[in-house]
Amino acid sequence: MSAELKSRTESLSGRPTADAQLARALLAAVGGPPVRIALWTGESVAVREPAEATVRMRDRTALLRLLVDPDMNFGDAYADGSADVEGDLAQLIELIYRSRGRAGPLAALLRGALRLLMRPHSNTLAASRENIQHHYDLGNRFYRLWLDREMAYTCAYFPSPETGLEEAQVAKFDHVCRKLRLRAGERVIEAGCGWGGFALHAARCYGVKVRAFNISREQLAWARERARELGLQDRVEFFEDDYRNIAGRCDAFVSIGMLEHVGRGNYGALGRVIDRCLTEAGRGLIHSIGQDRGKPLNAWIERRIFPGAYPPRLGEMMQVLEPRRFSVLDVENLRLHYALTLEHWLRRFEAARDEVRAMYDETFVRVWRFYLSGSLAAFRAGELQLYQVVFNRAGSNELPWTRGYLYDAAGR
Amino acid sequence: MSAELKSRTESLSGRPTADAQLARALLAAVGGPPVRIALWTGESVAVREPAEATVRMRDRTALLRLLVDPDMNFGDAYADGSADVEGDLAQLIELIYRSRGRAGPLAALLRGALRLLMRPHSNTLAASRENIQHHYDLGNRFYRLWLDREMAYTCAYFPSPETGLEEAQVAKFDHVCRKLRLRAGERVIEAGCGWGGFALHAARCYGVKVRAFNISREQLAWARERARELGLQDRVEFFEDDYRNIAGRCDAFVSIGMLEHVGRGNYGALGRVIDRCLTEAGRGLIHSIGQDRGKPLNAWIERRIFPGAYPPRLGEMMQVLEPRRFSVLDVENLRLHYALTLEHWLRRFEAARDEVRAMYDETFVRVWRFYLSGSLAAFRAGELQLYQVVFNRAGSNELPWTRGYLYDAAGR
Repeated sequence: MSAELKSRTESLSGRPTADAQLARALLAAVGGPPVRIALWTGESVAVREPAEATVRMRDRTALLRLLVDPDMNFGDAYADGSADVEGDLAQLIELIYRSRGRAGPLAALLRGALRLLMRPHSNTLAASRENIQHHYDLGNRFYRLWLDREMAYTCAYFPSPETGLEEAQVAKFDHVCRKLRLRAGERVIEAGCGWGGFALHAARCYGVKVRAFNISREQLAWARERARELGLQDRVEFFEDDYRNIAGRCDAFVSIGMLEHVGRGNYGALGRVIDRCLTEAGRGLIHSIGQDRGKPLNAWIERRIFPGAYPPRLGEMMQVLEPRRFSVLDVENLRLHYALTLEHWLRRFEAARDEVRAMYDETFVRVWRFYLSGSLAAFRAGELQLYQVVFNRAGSNELPWTRGYLYDAAGR
Repeated sequence: MSAELKSRTESLSGRPTADAQLARALLAAVGGPPVRIALWTGESVAVREPAEATVRMRDRTALLRLLVDPDMNFGDAYADGSADVEGDLAQLIELIYRSRGRAGPLAALLRGALRLLMRPHSNTLAASRENIQHHYDLGNRFYRLWLDREMAYTCAYFPSPETGLEEAQVAKFDHVCRKLRLRAGERVIEAGCGWGGFALHAARCYGVKVRAFNISREQLAWARERARELGLQDRVEFFEDDYRNIAGRCDAFVSIGMLEHVGRGNYGALGRVIDRCLTEAGRGLIHSIGQDRGKPLNAWIERRIFPGAYPPRLGEMMQVLEPRRFSVLDVENLRLHYALTLEHWLRRFEAARDEVRAMYDETFVRVWRFYLSGSLAAFRAGELQLYQVVFNRAGSNELPWTRGYLYDAAGR
């Protein structure tokens, strides 16, 4: 443990117990954040003062599980209540993200040794896991409780931090349409359309024809119903199909929040699909969570929330575009916009938690609270990024002269 | 040769000669552009009508040299006058760039076979080559004839296509300063400062202190003289040193037009230098020529103009940033701005050609005309890109909320 970290341990006897020493080791293993661990024994441990949040541990098993694999097991322990947090959960996770870089190699060694010593722990979440893994099939009823009215489940665009979520999701659709320079009558293909918010907005406000693809039947049912309500059935077609089966030509290709789920091995396949569809003067936009170094997604989120998800580095995103000779025109990082989006979602989720608990159970509420808080922390701490990448075909010169038009009076 | 290409061959006898057939093979080898080849025999050959430009060949050797390696030998043949062009040279090269993708595998086979058959041709450019290779040491007197008054030898930023070159180079400095969000009193390091235009602008207009590095003694002498004239000696320091030796801390790190010369093997070294220098809340910007696929620079430009230069793919530029955990905030592709910059340079160069010829010789004039025209064509055809990449350290949240401030009343 670093000498600069102040150590403070209290126990009933005045001397640290073995459990308190384990708690200190845990804090050291994650880089010594200003966080207190309150033990079931009444002891409390901090290695940096003042502690800005407190984690309360219910028993020794929970503590040991965290020592073995804090990334994976903190979420589970929080979900089943064997760990609890006093203070702001998102802020606590951000403190850990920001301190973790300071953890020495000894900490990694310790974790490795413990992992060998301990047998796989029993999973107390078996019952709720199925619900969680089928993330997008949780049902429109659940997401309606806390998403905006367009049901946009991706990063919003806030012209200013005071913009509300409803307005910011529409502003995101608009930002994307403007980046793609959509003109009335053009054909748009959307890969991974969620509940159809973008497709409907583009058709309604930009006069384009959209063919939108998704593999979630329940989302598509919702999207088709909205298209009927808005009288847009003849301008927006929704297809229940995989992005790899997309065919036909388009003037603009857009994908918002799908690349995270495509998998690194399929970037080339996505590039081939775009190449097959896009006209010579066509434009494309990929909006995706990313990261600035090649690390797997947080283990807990990958296992409990988004199986198979991976946030690509910008260099990896180029594997979609470079082999097909697409030219990158513009990259914008909207990381703090995703943090703000998540603040809104978390607030709305907490406001609806009694309804969520009635629909599922308390564990489900805690899993989702942890997931939304952890994601918020990851975007705040720079563990995750949000990239919007605009591209066209090499040598197509129908380009806006500057990006000023994105910000003029007609825009923001 | 594709069946859709119309063939038209004229000869005095009415039947194509062997030379005319070679000329047709040459046109096919570069994808059949709408270009006519006029031979020393009086024959003229085109494979696509209407031909938009004519290349006049002086003798069979010149024609064979082009067949062996058009990329390399067209420039040399143009320079020594064994090939000449009627019409717009830049447009001709753009036509070739745009048709080249259509050249079939047979064309490559033919070129390979010819390369084996022919011995290396004697180089008629030996005398002028030394001048050309020492590109940046040609002397301030030469560049003053056709660069802007700030001597900016990199892509300008044109708020509109009508902006003049002088104003556009200052607008580029300003665009970079605004992207870096420079504040009075901050410390800036510039790697590869050319004649010092950016460093002096930043110090004068943004009140920052700049330490600027360059290895060209003649450029530095000019830059120091300008700093004295402007009374900025205490705010801008110019160092004759390699970027790898840069030390000291800075709030902003900038490099405009240096990465092209750094070499792919040194991207990690550049990243380490930036990591060593930049404060926690620091910002960085790299402005560089790039490409959308991994191809060496045009052989002729690499050999005659910029030995060792390589325009990186965006994915390759990430090798500077990702290993050190820098986050990309913004990428802007200014390809058409570089094309317009080159149009200005070419026009100014032609206006000064008598003076250039008096300083050097006619071959020198033709080499430079070919280089500027070829570069113009490459940016127009999308063979080359111009990327401005803005980054900061992972997790530093002092970010502008949107990019609108770059385009507000105070800006453009």
